[in-house]
Amino acid sequence: MFVDRLISSIKSKSNSCVVGLDPTLEMIPEHIRKRHIVRGTNKEIAKAFWEFNKGVIDGVFDLAPAIKVQVAFYELLGLDGLEVFYKTLNYSKEKGLITIADVKRGDIGSTADAYAKAYLRNSDIDSITVNPYFGSDGLNPFIKESIENEKGLFILVKTSNPSSAEIQDLKTETGFIYEKVAQLVSTLEENTTGFSNIGTVIGGTHPEHIKKLRSKLKGFILVPGYGAQGAKAEDISHGFLDESLGALICSSRSITAAYKKYGEGNRYQRDARRALRNMIDDINRHAKIGGKTKWQT
Amino acid sequence: MFVDRLISSIKSKSNSCVVGLDPTLEMIPEHIRKRHIVRGTNKEIAKAFWEFNKGVIDGVFDLAPAIKVQVAFYELLGLDGLEVFYKTLNYSKEKGLITIADVKRGDIGSTADAYAKAYLRNSDIDSITVNPYFGSDGLNPFIKESIENEKGLFILVKTSNPSSAEIQDLKTETGFIYEKVAQLVSTLEENTTGFSNIGTVIGGTHPEHIKKLRSKLKGFILVPGYGAQGAKAEDISHGFLDESLGALICSSRSITAAYKKYGEGNRYQRDARRALRNMIDDINRHAKIGGKTKWQT
Repeated sequence: MFVDRLISSIKSKSNSCVVGLDPTLEMIPEHIRKRHIVRGTNKEIAKAFWEFNKGVIDGVFDLAPAIKVQVAFYELLGLDGLEVFYKTLNYSKEKGLITIADVKRGDIGSTADAYAKAYLRNSDIDSITVNPYFGSDGLNPFIKESIENEKGLFILVKTSNPSSAEIQDLKTETGFIYEKVAQLVSTLEENTTGFSNIGTVIGGTHPEHIKKLRSKLKGFILVPGYGAQGAKAEDISHGFLDESLGALICSSRSITAAYKKYGEGNRYQRDARRALRNMIDDINRHAKIGGKTKWQT
Repeated sequence: MFVDRLISSIKSKSNSCVVGLDPTLEMIPEHIRKRHIVRGTNKEIAKAFWEFNKGVIDGVFDLAPAIKVQVAFYELLGLDGLEVFYKTLNYSKEKGLITIADVKRGDIGSTADAYAKAYLRNSDIDSITVNPYFGSDGLNPFIKESIENEKGLFILVKTSNPSSAEIQDLKTETGFIYEKVAQLVSTLEENTTGFSNIGTVIGGTHPEHIKKLRSKLKGFILVPGYGAQGAKAEDISHGFLDESLGALICSSRSITAAYKKYGEGNRYQRDARRALRNMIDDINRHAKIGGKTKWQT
């Protein structure tokens, strides 16, 4: 089961903080850029992304239970970038990390089925993010493949961006759209007694939404928005069901580009590690992870 | 401008029917499978997809104004598949077709920006499909790149699948969700007097939705669902603003796998052409394209 592997990884590291690998050219330290980039081709930039990602993973793999890889930044480099996307997932698995491919796919049944197979049958991918706009017959192929391959899903409920309210916070006769999506996710979940393999995404920038929905959801909540986007540890703490499990908090730039704040580019691995440690301390102080918690007694 | 190129292509071919290239292994004729597939690797299947796609394009390029390529079926084969995705778009452009990359991407601003650049800066891609769940700040990067690169967008409003009602038909205090998305699209559109470059997707399986929204939208409506999914020409005719322009009707399997109905696999090109001709006749009979229409007088 995906969720059992996830929980075991969180417990072994006393940490629910996940690192996001969303490389951009301006995020790459000077010494790596110089080594690979001469003409600025996609192939060269992809090589720099790969060295950078590998460095970040080496720097944090023993602290983080999981890694999230945002495919958009690799698609931007075409096939060269996508090769690095798959290599990054492979290397993360080698290092014992649970992988989240942040692909946010969604389509009608037969197409959703192709997407589901594309990602959930890949042995380097433990879970993916999914867009719910199509309703249940667009989600079912993902559910089916997640069960067959013992993988996890994180279905978008309330996204971290400011404009998310325009659609997701619209009020219907029976609740807000984000609540309707949360209800839909609940009906799709297997009848589990513990945590479900089907999680959701709720931005840490919306603590009220997390608070309201946590008790109604049986899966983990993937919480983006900590750090660069402004979500605070106290906001995110509502995502933990028993103050120790139930939320996966993701930060990308604030970790991977921490060297811009702390020091020099050639020590980016050490600085990513330092930033992650600070994040873990901050989150655990509020979630009491690593202290006296239910699952550790 | 994208929409000018699209209209010019539609007029020169007196046709608004678009062919979708969504290959699956079981769709590929026996003689092509035999030529490429021995062990069943992704590389072999991708080679078969490429020969098949090229054959379909050669069979229909002089009839169709545009081609739609659904990325999911290529992602399923990993990098080998994606190579064929890009080759197919490139070959379609060479043959003078307007290309629609059906990627349905959507994310928060910085990530949407990466997706937008990935596709809209590619010279083989004229337009893409976009998911609106994130609201305007998730759509704006796509709008920006579409303007800068003179490309088009088709934003999902009402999808063709049965469960689309679960989210999209929910009623808010100020209209249904699909209407709210349509309104949002209208606010994002440039102030054009003719057709906008920003179109929408409304399934042909929902004629009432097309009817209701057509007059409120300034862009083309991409209409999937004709053929295999059951939408009829009379349903789709509501998508034409002046009975000749305003809708792009897409069919995939019913065209590309028409040989299964008409004849033998080794004549799949001729059969795709025949199926497309029948579709064009059917649509034009209802839309009066090729007859006495406003844009032809």
